[in-house]
Amino acid sequence: MATTRFQGENPELDGLYGDLAEADLQPLWLQERLLTAAPPQRSVPFCWKAKDVYPLAERARRLVPIERGGDRRVLMFSNPGMGGWCMATSTMSAAIQILGPGEIAPAHRHTAAAIRFILEGSGAVTLVDGDAIPMIPGDLVLTPNWTWHEHHNPTDERVLWLDVLDLALVIWLDAMFFEPGPDAPDPGPSPSGSTSERRFGRSGIVPVSGAGGGAYSPLFVYRWSDVDAVLDDILGGIAAHHASVRYSDPVRGGDVMPTLRCEAHRLRPGGAADFGRATGSAMWTVFTGEGVASVGDSTFEVEPGDTYVVPSWCPHRLETAAGADLFTVGDAPTFEALGLMRRRPPDAGERSER
Amino acid sequence: MATTRFQGENPELDGLYGDLAEADLQPLWLQERLLTAAPPQRSVPFCWKAKDVYPLAERARRLVPIERGGDRRVLMFSNPGMGGWCMATSTMSAAIQILGPGEIAPAHRHTAAAIRFILEGSGAVTLVDGDAIPMIPGDLVLTPNWTWHEHHNPTDERVLWLDVLDLALVIWLDAMFFEPGPDAPDPGPSPSGSTSERRFGRSGIVPVSGAGGGAYSPLFVYRWSDVDAVLDDILGGIAAHHASVRYSDPVRGGDVMPTLRCEAHRLRPGGAADFGRATGSAMWTVFTGEGVASVGDSTFEVEPGDTYVVPSWCPHRLETAAGADLFTVGDAPTFEALGLMRRRPPDAGERSER
Amino acid sequence: MATTRFQGENPELDGLYGDLAEADLQPLWLQERLLTAAPPQRSVPFCWKAKDVYPLAERARRLVPIERGGDRRVLMFSNPGMGGWCMATSTMSAAIQILGPGEIAPAHRHTAAAIRFILEGSGAVTLVDGDAIPMIPGDLVLTPNWTWHEHHNPTDERVLWLDVLDLALVIWLDAMFFEPGPDAPDPGPSPSGSTSERRFGRSGIVPVSGAGGGAYSPLFVYRWSDVDAVLDDILGGIAAHHASVRYSDPVRGGDVMPTLRCEAHRLRPGGAADFGRATGSAMWTVFTGEGVASVGDSTFEVEPGDTYVVPSWCPHRLETAAGADLFTVGDAPTFEALGLMRRRPPDAGERSER
Amino acid sequence: MATTRFQGENPELDGLYGDLAEADLQPLWLQERLLTAAPPQRSVPFCWKAKDVYPLAERARRLVPIERGGDRRVLMFSNPGMGGWCMATSTMSAAIQILGPGEIAPAHRHTAAAIRFILEGSGAVTLVDGDAIPMIPGDLVLTPNWTWHEHHNPTDERVLWLDVLDLALVIWLDAMFFEPGPDAPDPGPSPSGSTSERRFGRSGIVPVSGAGGGAYSPLFVYRWSDVDAVLDDILGGIAAHHASVRYSDPVRGGDVMPTLRCEAHRLRPGGAADFGRATGSAMWTVFTGEGVASVGDSTFEVEPGDTYVVPSWCPHRLETAAGADLFTVGDAPTFEALGLMRRRPPDAGERSER
Repeated sequence: MATTRFQGENPELDGLYGDLAEADLQPLWLQERLLTAAPPQRSVPFCWKAKDVYPLAERARRLVPIERGGDRRVLMFSNPGMGGWCMATSTMSAAIQILGPGEIAPAHRHTAAAIRFILEGSGAVTLVDGDAIPMIPGDLVLTPNWTWHEHHNPTDERVLWLDVLDLALVIWLDAMFFEPGPDAPDPGPSPSGSTSERRFGRSGIVPVSGAGGGAYSPLFVYRWSDVDAVLDDILGGIAAHHASVRYSDPVRGGDVMPTLRCEAHRLRPGGAADFGRATGSAMWTVFTGEGVASVGDSTFEVEPGDTYVVPSWCPHRLETAAGADLFTVGDAPTFEALGLMRRRPPDAGERSER
Repeated sequence: MATTRFQGENPELDGLYGDLAEADLQPLWLQERLLTAAPPQRSVPFCWKAKDVYPLAERARRLVPIERGGDRRVLMFSNPGMGGWCMATSTMSAAIQILGPGEIAPAHRHTAAAIRFILEGSGAVTLVDGDAIPMIPGDLVLTPNWTWHEHHNPTDERVLWLDVLDLALVIWLDAMFFEPGPDAPDPGPSPSGSTSERRFGRSGIVPVSGAGGGAYSPLFVYRWSDVDAVLDDILGGIAAHHASVRYSDPVRGGDVMPTLRCEAHRLRPGGAADFGRATGSAMWTVFTGEGVASVGDSTFEVEPGDTYVVPSWCPHRLETAAGADLFTVGDAPTFEALGLMRRRPPDAGERSER
Repeated sequence: MATTRFQGENPELDGLYGDLAEADLQPLWLQERLLTAAPPQRSVPFCWKAKDVYPLAERARRLVPIERGGDRRVLMFSNPGMGGWCMATSTMSAAIQILGPGEIAPAHRHTAAAIRFILEGSGAVTLVDGDAIPMIPGDLVLTPNWTWHEHHNPTDERVLWLDVLDLALVIWLDAMFFEPGPDAPDPGPSPSGSTSERRFGRSGIVPVSGAGGGAYSPLFVYRWSDVDAVLDDILGGIAAHHASVRYSDPVRGGDVMPTLRCEAHRLRPGGAADFGRATGSAMWTVFTGEGVASVGDSTFEVEPGDTYVVPSWCPHRLETAAGADLFTVGDAPTFEALGLMRRRPPDAGERSER
Repeated sequence: MATTRFQGENPELDGLYGDLAEADLQPLWLQERLLTAAPPQRSVPFCWKAKDVYPLAERARRLVPIERGGDRRVLMFSNPGMGGWCMATSTMSAAIQILGPGEIAPAHRHTAAAIRFILEGSGAVTLVDGDAIPMIPGDLVLTPNWTWHEHHNPTDERVLWLDVLDLALVIWLDAMFFEPGPDAPDPGPSPSGSTSERRFGRSGIVPVSGAGGGAYSPLFVYRWSDVDAVLDDILGGIAAHHASVRYSDPVRGGDVMPTLRCEAHRLRPGGAADFGRATGSAMWTVFTGEGVASVGDSTFEVEPGDTYVVPSWCPHRLETAAGADLFTVGDAPTFEALGLMRRRPPDAGERSER
């Protein structure tokens, strides 16, 4: 017997509950919070501020050698709603990773898929299945499910980035496989671009020989300069104060990975965007500018490097005085694939229609 | 601060760990069992035997009125690996539901999707979105995501069935919505068949007006007599001792729901089937016959009504002296949609290739 | 030079036109009817009446041995708009095939896909890839692209059916391959059903081992009794006087073949159906009852066994005094796949919007 | 009666044939070349040489005003196998279009989809649904099904390009709709790029607001500089002497249109490529370099601007002494969608397997 033992109000009932527990059974009729009218939002709205996190990352850099454990010097965002587990939302881990000058985070691979959004420092290199990708702030780098990856910092300065993985989901699903890898040879002086970009970085031009067998984008890096140009063009063409782009698989279309959706959003000075509610959770990171985010009952004043959580079914609104660019990554593709995506526009009140 | 506080080996490190916890951060390098070489199999191999469960269900029927809570008289299989939570696997709940003569389990709907596999008693009726479906042993009834459903037992005998829902997944994803419903009028004397069957129960003949908007099968019941006939035909045509069929969406093809896969398997007397390993979990229920199931290091002698769990990445083998028919439901579609399905054939040893 | 030589109005222009023809070039500006405002309807509305065709088929049966040519005794519907080519529409051939008692139409296969709709005589057998399918009036039999097929009439009476193939399309596309086959051994006394039906004829029950590799339905025969039951049920449930079902692939969903769509339509006595216009063509055959079909400017009084053509973009309307069941096959899947399907509802006037 | 009247060998048979013709029927058994062992290749291998075609285009430019007819000054490639019809293959028209300084080809739209591959002259502009696209040699411009398009030459020099349309297919399918359009206002001085490129020209970055409703690429122009860079990179990375890229829809993946596939191929000096056989036809145009093409029994020595046809099921081989870049457009997506694609590798002999 390893299950919950419920108490009955009279001896006969109590005897039944005892025998049920003995048989590893539980009465449904005594369960609470299983069948909730709306999701109870296990993770809570929360914001990690760069001014708090970066100095801690710097202290960790000085105190903790990279080979200390887990192969990575990573500060994991621990959502206060997750009961002490080091996850940012119900499905995702998020973290700040820091590499000092000359440091190398060695090669490994795992079934949890990761994205990196570069926040500080230019010239570090991530190798994805051996392809060396130089990174600068604003870039998005993918290390999809089961791809080898390692990080090198050949520069004289520290580099900092945001890591987001579908880790809580993959662990929950009992689907985590991990393998430490042979380190690639040092990629040498920072190259000018990756094979991935040279092959798949020209819009609409695809090698006939294809894109490899993975169920993910073969383009492993998306440059901020490209994102910036498209956002600019969209805002140039309309009267609105909000523009957004989605990072997509240039060969198959759709999201960059089966489990994660990445987008960039730009608000003009004085602009606002109201996203209403949706099932699934997301991380939002300010790249430039500033703003005020309302998530459920919480309000966060956000600056560059700050990251906040929008839990499932929480209303979310952004506004900005000076203008802002944000990067966001969420689990929407998972919800769509499983028929569990439900959206409610900002002004739809409390109706729970789909 | 609501996160885990790690201890450092020296004052400086311990100070860092304290400050990290204060900032709702955790060091990755002190985490254990995040990046496991293979899934740790949170749920464990386990078997609930009809001879234990049915009498407890009968006691519950006599002691617990159906309106007692949760609208259902359901004994939930509580996997000993799930830490006291009433779930059968990482993604699914499973249970025995019992209805006495004349009882009605009232209408409700929820985003968790359910299947029912009828084990005992003929003539109860499930209404799915108002469509009355009479049930007999061996039938599979679907109550997909957000469909209204209620159960009536107009007969003189108790009825028992297996319930399986994607409940652990939907709760984990913070995607549970629930709504109590208006009861349908009593469907009256047991009809001879459902609208769903009359419209979608003739193979390959589909109303041009379509199948409703849901992302699930519009055929809400699959009769054992059909399953039996196809299994018979397959085994009649080959020398093998194992045949299997998948329950599918007759309009769109593929699985009956986005999150669950249902199959029936028949082993001839003296037959065996070795399924190797796969990510994702499944429930197996004996409908007729008997057998011995090996799941990981556990061995279960199984008879009609017995249900056992195959957790993620556990080797699974079945053999039978007298022959057996089994019903199984698992979460394979979820793993396939998310790019997390990994299989290893029975004789592939410990290699972890995909 | 093998092209059209246009005439110029003056010597210089005429010289150019001569030199163009010499170079196998043509001036676009002298082409007529290339860029038409709406499709010119190459094939025309037309009806072949059973009372004319069946006696001719009977004469052919007596005069022409089956081995005479083409392996089949087939009277091809030659649409008067097709310039003497033996095609019923721009994409399809249609025909009446007749087999006398004891006759066999030998095995062959081709890339053109065919359907058979049985009109007269019970008990003939078509073998599709070796699977013997007994046929009775109202049944639909598929012999998809590159499947071996042969027809046996072991009965004492003649059998007659409608053949429709995507032959005009396949020939036009230069995609016709043909191979004469080894005859299958005589299937012996008429079996009670085909392997195809036993494996794929139970709605929603599919062998896990799959459905073969072809891009077509693995169910090779659809029984009229099934069609009849579903049409009945639809009409029983609504106040309308028109019901329709589509024949579909029970494993993958969608049409039975990539190039052809089959449907059955039932009109109650006194009922009517107005189909408006669509690109693509279709054959309509009366199975029981009678009616009046308006196709473009033509009107046809139709009885059992009569078959008429609805050419591309022709308005089509059906009405009946006594009620009618009709079978129809058209090329809609081809138009949908190529982005060329355009529909106009009955009352939309002459606007050419999509 | 409007069909072919066959002759019988004896009076009775001849009477039957007369009566069949009278009833618009034809005997299958007298048809020839319907069921061919392999496609008879209606269109034939053929090459139009720039040195012949360009001077004729120049003569047409001087003699024929653009408003003369059809809105376009276009010399259509008339395949000698097409019986005088102005089509290049069974499914496609191909042509050279010429615009003199200051000329405008006015706006229209049609359901036939077109591609333009620019051969001579820089700075002309095509407006696609109002989006002005400046063109230089090597660029590919799309004017998909039912998009408005017009061409302006604001420069001082003539411009020449290759037009290819799915015109033979669309006409054959009775699916041609055409509408003359309101001319757009003059786009003014040549812009530096199109809206289409600014929105969809950054690989993997897609506006969240989407790509319009059409079943085609929202990127209307593909620049040769991009094609060149990717071809270079592929050849730089391998020992082979042949590289190829496919033009694709950057939002949905797959081909640029449902009916046409575009690719670019590069052969190193001394290189060769053997394509074997496939159903479906293609046009090949030399952009730079030279080579020798073998198509069936024909051999063509080709130079820049030369275009040749590869008919369905014709073996095709290319070799080059000096190296070559070629552009090709074919109807492969049509054949794949309809289940009619069949390929045979170069060394597979005469076997007709799929």
